[in-house]
Amino acid sequence: MSRRHGDRWLVPPGTAVDLAKHDPRDTSGAPGGERATRKAADELAEPMAELQERLYAESAQSLLIVLQALDAGGKDGTIKHVFRGLNPQGVHVTSFKQPTPHDLAHDFLWRVHGAAPDRGLIGIFNRSHYEDVLVARVRRLVPEPVWRARYRHINDFEVLLAQDARTRIVKIYLHISRDEQAERLRRRLERPDKRWKFNPGDLEERARWDDYLAAYEEALARTSTGDAPWFVVPADHKWFRDWAVSRIVVEALEDMDPQYPEPAADLDGLTVT
Amino acid sequence: MSRRHGDRWLVPPGTAVDLAKHDPRDTSGAPGGERATRKAADELAEPMAELQERLYAESAQSLLIVLQALDAGGKDGTIKHVFRGLNPQGVHVTSFKQPTPHDLAHDFLWRVHGAAPDRGLIGIFNRSHYEDVLVARVRRLVPEPVWRARYRHINDFEVLLAQDARTRIVKIYLHISRDEQAERLRRRLERPDKRWKFNPGDLEERARWDDYLAAYEEALARTSTGDAPWFVVPADHKWFRDWAVSRIVVEALEDMDPQYPEPAADLDGLTVT
Repeated sequence: MSRRHGDRWLVPPGTAVDLAKHDPRDTSGAPGGERATRKAADELAEPMAELQERLYAESAQSLLIVLQALDAGGKDGTIKHVFRGLNPQGVHVTSFKQPTPHDLAHDFLWRVHGAAPDRGLIGIFNRSHYEDVLVARVRRLVPEPVWRARYRHINDFEVLLAQDARTRIVKIYLHISRDEQAERLRRRLERPDKRWKFNPGDLEERARWDDYLAAYEEALARTSTGDAPWFVVPADHKWFRDWAVSRIVVEALEDMDPQYPEPAADLDGLTVT
Repeated sequence: MSRRHGDRWLVPPGTAVDLAKHDPRDTSGAPGGERATRKAADELAEPMAELQERLYAESAQSLLIVLQALDAGGKDGTIKHVFRGLNPQGVHVTSFKQPTPHDLAHDFLWRVHGAAPDRGLIGIFNRSHYEDVLVARVRRLVPEPVWRARYRHINDFEVLLAQDARTRIVKIYLHISRDEQAERLRRRLERPDKRWKFNPGDLEERARWDDYLAAYEEALARTSTGDAPWFVVPADHKWFRDWAVSRIVVEALEDMDPQYPEPAADLDGLTVT
């Protein structure tokens, strides 16, 4: 691959981010319309599974995928559709919910550090330490100097994982429109198998849409780094989102280029009797 | 389903186990030959995924699958083939390796308890606390009175999970023959993409085959209980093994009968604007 697809959605380190300029319905770069793109996404499951197997066997590096989005932005759906073909032994999903009192008795990265992927694994964060510069900022859970200092703490932490643990970090913001969010929340209200996902608090959060977008813009700009880049994936169309995320993940794995290791000991001359 | 397939492989609580009477090449009960049975196993992926989604949504019960086998018995392969279709967000695989010094500073169930599945999840143990009455016995890592007392500790622990956490426990011993193990170990020596799995220590363990079988027989007999039954699955034929394990898992989930929950709050009259 000469140029990576994923670069299309990359936030170049050190640049400002204006989400109004990112169209959530954009599908450019897709291999075709909905049907062809779904097929292309499905076809990425096999190379992804094969690269995962090598990563697991190699047991020297790990991949961490951070998924962030507003409510109903598609984090759960992305995990379900993109990562379902993987060997569950090599994947570990962590969903970060309200911190517990024990979490809050520590710095904000403490619980996150504990969930860092083991060597050989793919770790997926469904929400993450980024909530601590998003919801914490919008809902004023901590004073501004505290959340502002966290950009640096986050960057330092991610450098540690990347350099000391050989963790490849890929951070994806699923970008949906305000209309699409309304549509999805309505569907949750209507469908019996979706109602359990509806949380009346989501409406309060929706009322703070602009505040969240501003918080995302600053977070993306300040923490997209060479060691841990952000990607803004247009996510109104689920089929496009699944394909784009699959591409980003497969390209990251290709770039990591995991190899089956040599056996630990010299096996020549051994026979099984 | 009037009678469950899984009952065929169940170790009835309170009965002795003679593994010589269980043919590792047995395929009785299968829906057909290799081809038809593979197809039947594949077709179980969909109901399994649907039941998993309900289990996750319900978030009231959990399922724990304990996989035990001798080396090359097919634990990794079973996880890869049977559970690959699940949403990785709802599955958590724990591979128990050599205990760390920190593990050993506690009782043998301490590290296992920490890996018990969260409500709503399917937990899979690749090896488990049973190693503490298997390898610990065969390699004399602890005195006999210590490992002997563990049958009771294990039963008590599993009752706790089953009754207090509503964890359904399904324990599966993958039963292979001595010849099949030799075949598989030879393949690991020969194939470049399998050599990393070969551990010269496996040959030492193989030499203790009879001791391991005796240890398994006693463990299965003493710890197959109503709350946490053991199944002995003939595992020389991988296609049969995958189908049998899929059946046992789907039947357990059907029996748990998870339901989409009512939403936390009264949603009537709410509109999304």
